[in-house]
Amino acid sequence: MDRLKQINDRVVSRLNTNLNGLNFDAEPFVSKAVNYENMLKFYAFYGITSHYPIFFDFRHSNISGSYFLGKCHVDRSTIYKSDIRGDELKRKGDQIDCAKNIPLVEDEVITIRDSLLYKTLVHSHSHNPESPEEFSIKNTISAHYSNIHGSTLAGCFLGPFATVDLMNLHACIVGEFSYIQAGELFHQKIAPGTIWVRQSAFEFTYEFDKVVLNKYVGIDSEYQPRGLIYDFVTLKEKEYERLFDVVKLAPVEFPASSAVNRYAVVKGNTCIGENVLVAQRAFLDNAKIGDGSNAQEQSYIVDAQLMGMNVTAHGAKIINARIGVKTFVGFNAFLFGKENAKIRIGKGSIVMPHTIIDATEPLYIPDYHLAWGYIRSVKDLKTHTISFAALEKIKDGISIGKMKFTGSGFAFVNAKKARINQILQANGSFFQNEKNRGHAQDGQNISFNTLQPYSTGDNKGIYPSVRIDP
Amino acid sequence: MDRLKQINDRVVSRLNTNLNGLNFDAEPFVSKAVNYENMLKFYAFYGITSHYPIFFDFRHSNISGSYFLGKCHVDRSTIYKSDIRGDELKRKGDQIDCAKNIPLVEDEVITIRDSLLYKTLVHSHSHNPESPEEFSIKNTISAHYSNIHGSTLAGCFLGPFATVDLMNLHACIVGEFSYIQAGELFHQKIAPGTIWVRQSAFEFTYEFDKVVLNKYVGIDSEYQPRGLIYDFVTLKEKEYERLFDVVKLAPVEFPASSAVNRYAVVKGNTCIGENVLVAQRAFLDNAKIGDGSNAQEQSYIVDAQLMGMNVTAHGAKIINARIGVKTFVGFNAFLFGKENAKIRIGKGSIVMPHTIIDATEPLYIPDYHLAWGYIRSVKDLKTHTISFAALEKIKDGISIGKMKFTGSGFAFVNAKKARINQILQANGSFFQNEKNRGHAQDGQNISFNTLQPYSTGDNKGIYPSVRIDP
Repeated sequence: MDRLKQINDRVVSRLNTNLNGLNFDAEPFVSKAVNYENMLKFYAFYGITSHYPIFFDFRHSNISGSYFLGKCHVDRSTIYKSDIRGDELKRKGDQIDCAKNIPLVEDEVITIRDSLLYKTLVHSHSHNPESPEEFSIKNTISAHYSNIHGSTLAGCFLGPFATVDLMNLHACIVGEFSYIQAGELFHQKIAPGTIWVRQSAFEFTYEFDKVVLNKYVGIDSEYQPRGLIYDFVTLKEKEYERLFDVVKLAPVEFPASSAVNRYAVVKGNTCIGENVLVAQRAFLDNAKIGDGSNAQEQSYIVDAQLMGMNVTAHGAKIINARIGVKTFVGFNAFLFGKENAKIRIGKGSIVMPHTIIDATEPLYIPDYHLAWGYIRSVKDLKTHTISFAALEKIKDGISIGKMKFTGSGFAFVNAKKARINQILQANGSFFQNEKNRGHAQDGQNISFNTLQPYSTGDNKGIYPSVRIDP
Repeated sequence: MDRLKQINDRVVSRLNTNLNGLNFDAEPFVSKAVNYENMLKFYAFYGITSHYPIFFDFRHSNISGSYFLGKCHVDRSTIYKSDIRGDELKRKGDQIDCAKNIPLVEDEVITIRDSLLYKTLVHSHSHNPESPEEFSIKNTISAHYSNIHGSTLAGCFLGPFATVDLMNLHACIVGEFSYIQAGELFHQKIAPGTIWVRQSAFEFTYEFDKVVLNKYVGIDSEYQPRGLIYDFVTLKEKEYERLFDVVKLAPVEFPASSAVNRYAVVKGNTCIGENVLVAQRAFLDNAKIGDGSNAQEQSYIVDAQLMGMNVTAHGAKIINARIGVKTFVGFNAFLFGKENAKIRIGKGSIVMPHTIIDATEPLYIPDYHLAWGYIRSVKDLKTHTISFAALEKIKDGISIGKMKFTGSGFAFVNAKKARINQILQANGSFFQNEKNRGHAQDGQNISFNTLQPYSTGDNKGIYPSVRIDP
């Protein structure tokens, strides 16, 4: 236990050095977030399939987390409840999107050194042309339900429910419930509730009202989460325990072209279509998951229908809602319909990451619309949605309510559409006649291996160093 | 699955080469013993504590077995349901019993190369002066419920319920239910039901009547077990399933000085004393396990009382019996008392390994007696027991019934007593005031790590290669 604390302390002090000047102390966050006694009761596990090349190598590490799927390498580090899904790692000879002339000289690996990482999901589509063979994280703390999606990171702190998407972050602090997709950032502090998408052709920003945000996601003085969204997920936590308590589960019914992860909760009258991916720690209750759809890690789909080809990104929550064909619901979006105030979204629409729709009356967002921000009523829809047709016409910029858009609307819509297609492709939504395999097919029949820490002695709380080759 | 079969086939052909001339074909045995489809459903696990130095290193291996506790190294090999308990491995600088002038230059490791091993328990007190740092097994098949206790082995076949104790075996076949403790043997075939203890000062032999043996332990044409003892253990098999199905078990009550392995069955009105070791896969039902006693791997103690300081060796079965203080019940002994034909054994006595006592009437073996062979009635006791007092007087030899003893009775009794003391010492039976720790203390709080094989692809049925350091 002392050793476990030592590992943490050393990394925390490095993190504080990196974040020097940004007025942040990691120590109280870590000591409050981690119950050392409890960590003895956890076990870690990693998934293995024949489809992803593995090379796990944990050293002097403490891993209470789970599910490293694909090549890996961790050094003297604490992980903890983390997913880290290496299923989109590139192989030797592959090219990266933004640097077609740099084929990889080796298989890409995930490398996490000296590191500390808390409750992080990390997903593996990296894109940093400076280190194409290495997906790298060091001394990073990500709080409850934050997402690191691809990419390089270093001494950073991500607040609860924060998302860093397709970008490189160096010594930054990202406030709670902020969504950042902004290329490369050095030594910055991002205010809570900031939605910021920046590419060369456009920029999209939205900032949540502080009072509103505080109702849904807030933090206390030690950066621990609170608020309505946190309460929602906390209430469901108990349902996961069963998955971790037994070795073999009663099987869930689903077609042979689909994958339902063994660590997903599936309950109620749930129906799963063809080519569907239900990822680890997804939560389905009275859900229809139409053909080609996916429910990504820590997404919640409750009393809701996805009509088909739907992307439900990491941490998205869809309650009392009906989502049209090929509609995308972004990271940590909170679609909170009620029995008497259902949410309906037409086909081909996009709900921006970190959108909160907390319906007080029935709401309908038509086909091919973009939705963002904070929506409660039909009236709010006017200032928080725009049709693709209108958006595509924007050449220089537009402000609608608190949303500010600059650059080419056409480029924005097309970039989003391309990304959705890429996600569906990667997830195996287009699988047919043994072609277009994706995670829905390759994520079937995962073997899980579990580790427990030493329960006594100097190494109490520490896992042995483990190396696993194919 | 093909790869799994390939690994087996290659080792089987090496084994057959080694056993050339002994009229044995391993192939049908292996193909009958192994259900490849089932092996996909198993998981392997290994135990880790702070007390035993670990260095697991499995390569290209298939391990459906469990519980490598202590340094290890396996090569391109199939293990399968095996225990292999490395908790008595010697450390650098230690000396071995039979060669005091050879201190170990490195920690002893268990090394199993190219190997195949089936349902084997191996326990780790090795004693081969030729390789003090290496406890080594290669291309060995041990059938259901056979015991390899310490030592070097090579291309050997051990039949069901056979035991090889404290000796080195090279290219040998040991028949079912034979117990051999005979130094070094090369290219020999041991007939079924042979009990053979040989040391420089004495030799003990007993051979079971073929018809009797066939009733209790027999084999079919493919070396698969049958008979009353096999039926007994088969009936209990279902009780173990629960242990493997859940991650956390409801705790069993026992004193802080004792260890009850998480993979032991403990049921009925069972009471566990101080300094007790209940090992993995031991089976206790309505059992009193007195202070300082142990129930070793695959021992069964049902409706029985061990009064204290009792050794119940691997595979021993004690049913409807009352065993006096410091009485030893050897490997695979079958003490089958009945409700109306209970077995009572006094204090300080020794029941030889592989003794069958199938009581048809109440039976009493007095204090300080040796018992062996096949006992059913009070009448049988005359030809199958001797008091230590009488035995100690034997200088040259004695034959009693089918038992033949040559050499010094005094040396025999003392060697046995010394070994029992050594076993009690190793098991922590004398633990007091934090002194004399043994397996009962060091076997507490074992962390278990589990592995599953690939479930699809070329490696179907094969486990990834794993290396685990402290």
